[in-house]
Amino acid sequence: MTYCCGILVRSGLVMIGDTRTNAGLDNIATYRKLHIFEKPGERIVALAAAGNLAVTQAVLSYLNEGIEDPETGEIKTLMEMPSMFKAAQLVGDAVRKVRTVDGPSLELSASGFDVSILVGGQIGGGRLRLFMVYRAGNFIEATEDTPYLQIGEHKYGKPILDRAVTYETELLDALKLGLISMDSTMRSNLGVGMPIDILTVERDALRADRNIRIEQDEPYFHNLREQWSTALRQAHLAIARPPYPPVDDGHDASVPLHRHSA
Amino acid sequence: MTYCCGILVRSGLVMIGDTRTNAGLDNIATYRKLHIFEKPGERIVALAAAGNLAVTQAVLSYLNEGIEDPETGEIKTLMEMPSMFKAAQLVGDAVRKVRTVDGPSLELSASGFDVSILVGGQIGGGRLRLFMVYRAGNFIEATEDTPYLQIGEHKYGKPILDRAVTYETELLDALKLGLISMDSTMRSNLGVGMPIDILTVERDALRADRNIRIEQDEPYFHNLREQWSTALRQAHLAIARPPYPPVDDGHDASVPLHRHSA
Repeated sequence: MTYCCGILVRSGLVMIGDTRTNAGLDNIATYRKLHIFEKPGERIVALAAAGNLAVTQAVLSYLNEGIEDPETGEIKTLMEMPSMFKAAQLVGDAVRKVRTVDGPSLELSASGFDVSILVGGQIGGGRLRLFMVYRAGNFIEATEDTPYLQIGEHKYGKPILDRAVTYETELLDALKLGLISMDSTMRSNLGVGMPIDILTVERDALRADRNIRIEQDEPYFHNLREQWSTALRQAHLAIARPPYPPVDDGHDASVPLHRHSA
Repeated sequence: MTYCCGILVRSGLVMIGDTRTNAGLDNIATYRKLHIFEKPGERIVALAAAGNLAVTQAVLSYLNEGIEDPETGEIKTLMEMPSMFKAAQLVGDAVRKVRTVDGPSLELSASGFDVSILVGGQIGGGRLRLFMVYRAGNFIEATEDTPYLQIGEHKYGKPILDRAVTYETELLDALKLGLISMDSTMRSNLGVGMPIDILTVERDALRADRNIRIEQDEPYFHNLREQWSTALRQAHLAIARPPYPPVDDGHDASVPLHRHSA
């Protein structure tokens, strides 16, 4: 399993990925899922990948080595793409290329052909953008209305993003909320685990701002998890108990009760 | 979609179910999913059902009208079962009976044969118990270590139960936590919706304690949702921003950065 999220706010981009890869519960390994393609001043593009590890690794190899354009014969690599839209298209092309080779045999297995990839960043004079590429190679983009995208085990970490993240959220607050989202996911799914890779990119900087691996015992993240846990406990303790009255004595017992509250 | 949960604590049992049924997003209806079989002083048994509505309604009809014992020819109804274990077995028998009739044709459709049922309550001198019956008709039981069970859209509402519910939680606190769990689920999945049916049963009372439908504008639940939302906002605002330092200037830009935190 995997959990990665990307958050696009006015001031920049956050991308976060866990590193746990598993083939069954008895075969667990650590693989980096957040990959950065950077030439400061010209481009910063980050990929976060979920799904079959063989597929995501093959996609990355194609993006590094290049994919031949069937019309021109030209070899295109991610580092040469002139825009984020073209970069997302190239990732989609790479996904389709791997699917052509590995898809049919993977579809015969239980796991199937499974991959989804976040592509975030900025190239040259273009906008800072964030896309999610599906297994079909098509993709959607984060917008001001919906400024985050998730891949992998997305449900446990979605509520905090839903409630708290807007396009106007400050970059470091977005990072903090992404880390809370990752914490919620790791608590509920053993397939998502430490260490965590994070990237922040300031809008128009065309380079990585923060590019850090958070290890198990890193003090800030450890405190964040503790504080969040404590705050949730205090939050539910602070809510009064339900005032709903008990059932009256002597009600007709043989039929289901459908008493409605006032 | 559906979300129901059952929480078994030392002092009693809580069962909560939403009422939204949908066949696609354009076909939404309200159906009660929490069903109560009660004879005060003798038995209180509650069922919460998720899955194909035709299947769960057929299961309930079998439990009301009775299932013939293939060996004795005797007709057995849920209201006659002498123990909670026998009651859960009868629910499993009813699931298998419906599967015999409807399973093969349902398996040919996209939805498949899909049902899961919580069975909670107490009969005669037996213990207060809570079971989850699977589509195969087999079942598991809640224990002191894992005092809650969920069916349907379970992921969004699981973290609060995981963090806060123990076997020693007071009955009304368990109800409150179940309502927070329901709130988290309804916020994230449109297929889970108001009104909500709740049941509380005190241990050894052999009758319903609270049996209430919470409508959209019910004041306590409305306040609980507001308070929880506010508390979550305060909780993440109270956590400091990440202190991670920016990337140094002048790093080698052509290779991915793998800087590790201290």
